[in-house]
Amino acid sequence: MREVKAFAPATVANVAAGFDVLGFALDSPGDELTAKFSDQHGVRISRITGDDGRLPLDSRKNTAGVAVHALLNHIGETRGIELLLDKKMPLGSGLGSSAASAVVAVVAVNALLGEPLSKRDLLPFALEGERIACGSAHADNAAPSLLGGFVLIRSYTPLDIVPLPMPEKLHATVVHPHIEIQTKDARGILKQQVSLSNAITQWGNTAGLVAGILMSDYGLISRSLQDVIVEPIRSILIPRFYEMKQAALDAGALGCSISGSGPSLFALSDSMETAHAVARAMTLVLDNIGIGSDAFISKVNQTGAKVLSIA
Amino acid sequence: MREVKAFAPATVANVAAGFDVLGFALDSPGDELTAKFSDQHGVRISRITGDDGRLPLDSRKNTAGVAVHALLNHIGETRGIELLLDKKMPLGSGLGSSAASAVVAVVAVNALLGEPLSKRDLLPFALEGERIACGSAHADNAAPSLLGGFVLIRSYTPLDIVPLPMPEKLHATVVHPHIEIQTKDARGILKQQVSLSNAITQWGNTAGLVAGILMSDYGLISRSLQDVIVEPIRSILIPRFYEMKQAALDAGALGCSISGSGPSLFALSDSMETAHAVARAMTLVLDNIGIGSDAFISKVNQTGAKVLSIA
Repeated sequence: MREVKAFAPATVANVAAGFDVLGFALDSPGDELTAKFSDQHGVRISRITGDDGRLPLDSRKNTAGVAVHALLNHIGETRGIELLLDKKMPLGSGLGSSAASAVVAVVAVNALLGEPLSKRDLLPFALEGERIACGSAHADNAAPSLLGGFVLIRSYTPLDIVPLPMPEKLHATVVHPHIEIQTKDARGILKQQVSLSNAITQWGNTAGLVAGILMSDYGLISRSLQDVIVEPIRSILIPRFYEMKQAALDAGALGCSISGSGPSLFALSDSMETAHAVARAMTLVLDNIGIGSDAFISKVNQTGAKVLSIA
Repeated sequence: MREVKAFAPATVANVAAGFDVLGFALDSPGDELTAKFSDQHGVRISRITGDDGRLPLDSRKNTAGVAVHALLNHIGETRGIELLLDKKMPLGSGLGSSAASAVVAVVAVNALLGEPLSKRDLLPFALEGERIACGSAHADNAAPSLLGGFVLIRSYTPLDIVPLPMPEKLHATVVHPHIEIQTKDARGILKQQVSLSNAITQWGNTAGLVAGILMSDYGLISRSLQDVIVEPIRSILIPRFYEMKQAALDAGALGCSISGSGPSLFALSDSMETAHAVARAMTLVLDNIGIGSDAFISKVNQTGAKVLSIA
């Protein structure tokens, strides 16, 4: 085996009340990465496309590179490895771009090395990569990108990852307004104290959302897609947030909130048709104020990162 | 039909991280109540046993009486009704005594009237009764007492009750130290602001507990039975709380925390045998400091309140 190409999906983290603990994966978009053995020592990123030159090629500073370094250190692998990363999603958009790059890199390299580790065991190395990009590692992007579906991060110390069997019909709409928010900034504006009363509302909704997913109860999912703590603050950074949200609900979405740390919004629907209608309604709001946007419409992905080809 | 006797079980509310949103029912203890038609107008409580004379016989001031008044008003029933309440659990113990009395009353009277309402529709009237006793209505006692099993209260306004299908093997140990805490006092010492970081830990655990219940994952239930917000404060009111908790865990409990607003503690186990061992270990801690206690060991009740006899 000389060369492995892999894919890792974009993800929606901070799913409404599930701030920091709940994320899900999209069928598309996602990152692709090719990993090859190289005669040069160490880890070398020889090409990045789709990033407009914004990501560092230095493998010690790049999300994908750091994740691979961590993996190779862990298993004691010393052969030289070359990475070619094709970014196929917008950066800084709230779609888990850093996490997808870290995940696709460890999945490709693990396959290149003959799968010394199980898929699930790759997560800590992907998180090492994400730590570089975001200042801290929030597994609610990396875990669903790796494993697919909805994933609950019950705890960070120790890391406790709970993939949630989920209903068939969940479709996601993600609308990415063409503005940019840094994860660090979006985190900085959050209040470090919250009222007990709001916190109770939030954990009622987190629990309700998880129950709705596990019981395939779309009505409960819909009623639980509420965030009284983070959305009211972060939505300030997103022009016409509440208009877009209302447009999504009017178009039949089960719920709508901020994707990751924004500026993208996500909506969930119970059919592909509704997910498309929701996308049209949301982007129209941005069109009307002259802000461009991309819309991604996708089933909620159930498989996560995967190897595309081995040569 | 002239006379109905019913039963409503004791409950554990505030289940660890599920403060205000998650409760479960016990097979025993529980309250019994007989409802009869009476020639006297209105609602009359002619007897209460098991309360050491502490509960008011005035039906406008008594949990059970107020709940029945609310129910009769709703359905426009004007016949006189007599209630005989047999308290079969300790008052002010954190076992949902008020809720059980309110629930047993509406279940008995609804049956006496030929079941004009479904069981689930009785909840708002039981909550009216509990509001009298506690100052506010916390459905995480009344809902599981009525419906059995684990019940999630996703939201209070509007009320959104989610019964959770649960694993077969869950057993509860409840230890009631012979000290008393008023619900109002236990609520008064809580901080009205909590850190975002603790809140995130809490909703991760709430979600984890619900996922563990729905996925019959005892390990996940065990890891999720943690409360970083309420237990650290309320445990101050309970002598040797952490010793009892550690004793429960050492004896094989999945987890242990405060039942309701205390002073009782609950522990969950995956067998009756362990639940008994846990009770012995916990009560021994109290014995050693000269505090008496009752221990209740029971399967988690799956059926809730029920009619015992109709004459």
